[in-house]
This record gives sequence, C-alpha cells and structure tokens, in this order.
Amino acid sequence: MKTIRPVQNLIDEFRKLPTIGPKTAARLTYFLLKAPEAESLKLASAIGNLKSKTTVCQQCFNIAERDPCFICDDNRRESKLICVVEEPLDVVAIEGTGRFQGFYHVLGGVISPVAGVGPEELRIQELIERLRGGMVEEVILATNPSVEGEATAMYIKREIERQIKGENPAIRITRIARGLPTGGDLEYADKVTLSRALEGRIDF
Amino acid sequence: MKTIRPVQNLIDEFRKLPTIGPKTAARLTYFLLKAPEAESLKLASAIGNLKSKTTVCQQCFNIAERDPCFICDDNRRESKLICVVEEPLDVVAIEGTGRFQGFYHVLGGVISPVAGVGPEELRIQELIERLRGGMVEEVILATNPSVEGEATAMYIKREIERQIKGENPAIRITRIARGLPTGGDLEYADKVTLSRALEGRIDF
Repeated sequence: MKTIRPVQNLIDEFRKLPTIGPKTAARLTYFLLKAPEAESLKLASAIGNLKSKTTVCQQCFNIAERDPCFICDDNRRESKLICVVEEPLDVVAIEGTGRFQGFYHVLGGVISPVAGVGPEELRIQELIERLRGGMVEEVILATNPSVEGEATAMYIKREIERQIKGENPAIRITRIARGLPTGGDLEYADKVTLSRALEGRIDF
Repeated sequence: MKTIRPVQNLIDEFRKLPTIGPKTAARLTYFLLKAPEAESLKLASAIGNLKSKTTVCQQCFNIAERDPCFICDDNRRESKLICVVEEPLDVVAIEGTGRFQGFYHVLGGVISPVAGVGPEELRIQELIERLRGGMVEEVILATNPSVEGEATAMYIKREIERQIKGENPAIRITRIARGLPTGGDLEYADKVTLSRALEGRIDF
C-alpha cells in the first residue's frame, strides 16, 4: 500500500495521460490536495464538459462546438485551398501562424501498419469526396515529416491522382517544406534534415 | 481565438497545475478528446472525490481517509520515534523505503520569509505538544536539504530544546544524513554536497 485510496485513484488516472510519469502524477495530485477545492472542481468540470460540449465537424473532421465548425462555416476563407493534417492539434498550430486562409481536413491519424491503422481508418475517402466538383485548386499535404506521415502523404497523393485528376487535371498537390528549423543550428542538424534543406534550397 | 471554448477551458485548467506548460496542457486535452469518454469521466470523478473523500489526520496532519490516519492508528509502530517532514508526499517517499517504523508529523511546508510563511503557519506547536509526556525518545528532522528546510529544522530543534528538554532531557533530535546520492558521481557532485559527504563520513 502506497497511499490512501482517493489519492491513489487520482494518481492512477493521471498516469494514464501522455507525458505524465508516476512522480508527476503524485505531484499533481498533492498539488490539488493543497489547492482550494474550487480549483479541483473547476478542473473536474472542464474535463467532464470536454466531450459533452464538443462534436466533430462532418466537413473537415476537426473538433468543433457545432457542425459545421467555425472554420468551415467562415465564408471569407479561400475555398480553393485545403490543408490536410493528421490531428486537431495540427490545425491549432497552423492557425497560430496566421498564414493560412484556406480550409482544413483532419485525417484522424496516419497510416501505420505497426499500430494497425490502414487508410480506411482515416478520413481519406472523405477528402477525395471533398475534392470532387473541381472547386479545390490546391491540396497541401501537411502530415508530419515522419516515416508514417510521409507514407500517408504519398498514399493520399496517389489516391487523388487516381480518383480526381481525371475530372480536375489542374489540381495541385503540394507538401509542406522540410529544412532547418528557424533558430536551429546547422552543425547539430541531422543528416536527413540537412539533405532536405539542401535539396529544397530556393533562390535568394 | 485559438481553439473552441470547451477545449480552451480544459487547456487553461491544466496549465494551472505544476510542471504543465501550454504545450503539455494542449496535448493532455487532445489526448482526452481522442480517448473514450469513460476515461475522461473517471479522471473527472477521481479529481472530484479527492477532497470530499479525504481529511487531515489531527495527530500527524497527513492526508487521510479517516482521522486518525492508518499510520497513527497502527499500534505495531514505534511510538518513541517521530519523523518530521514538510509535506504528505514526503511520508509516501519514506514509507516507500520500508525502513521507518515510527510515526510522522507533517509540517505543511517550511518557514519561508519570501513566501510569507512563518513558524505559526506550520504545525510546529502541534509537534511540541506531541512531545510532551516523555513518550518520544527521538525526533528525526527530515525536512528537505534546502535553505528553507535547514532553517526550519534549526528552528524546530531550538523550540524542542526550549520547551521540551526541561521535562525530557534524554530526547534525541536527529537530522537525516546528507551526502552523495546513491548512483551519483563524485566528479559531478556540487561543492556543498561533497563537503557534507566528507564531514559526515562514517567508519567502514
């Protein structure tokens, strides 16, 4: 026995979260024990409301308060641009740049044979359906620059070519640039990143 | 606006916790969004139950399910030994060693003029009262080896000498040992730790 049940319960629940190890779980729990009860109740209710007050946008498959989401519902955005990402957090990251005015499409993951995720588990066919009709001029594949992200981007590119190119031959398929991160150090960059930075060099 | 309200709410609540920065808060929130709702409800209820199902032991001031706590209520433990710690988590750490069979006394913090915590905010007078009657033979001061922890230990030592030594002259006041941590490297130890390790050397 390590500690009393209500405390151990919460430590165990915190430990199920990513990046939370046993020590952090205990620290968070004892922090809440010391904090005013109103604080922990606010946290508990925010967690309780998370699922009940959110839904999934049936157009872009992002987490939303209503369907369609506020991005898909925004007619000032450019409907000729679709940015394909893995997860809702990627939308938050790209929105944070303020440099993208098109629409999104959230795949819900990446193709990963190891994790048992095939293309049919992702929103790939839904993306293809959105591209029918010829409204979209460019699809930006913004999956992560990881092995699975690259493979998923490649798979989507082929599916668009196979299913859409016939009816919309002008459609552009682009991939977010890879290279040195800003503030990064050339000396410490890994070989793959440095090779990509060289290959992707642009006129200056 | 970064993200929708129920999501941002939870991110904000997570950020109030120690060791949780904005990125981790977002990651935890999106993890819960993807996890089955039952999981997040279990977490929410564990947080909700934390305060309502716990109390503070009025003997040792540790977090407890009932008063007195299961440690203070255990008559197989040695009543002549009291270990003084800063926080409930310290009790968990010492219990984890399995090497201490006495009772505890949780101060609820350390004397810290910077944070505005004086001796009267801590359970120091309650400790003194527990030492009356002469049952206790040794008080182990196990506050942290930090500036505040040392100062608090020193303050408690003086109070015991002033208030208790008269009626119980044989009472021992000890301090947990300082030295090199197991698995540590002498070469990388800071000067204070190394000096303490030398001063505290024992026959081998």
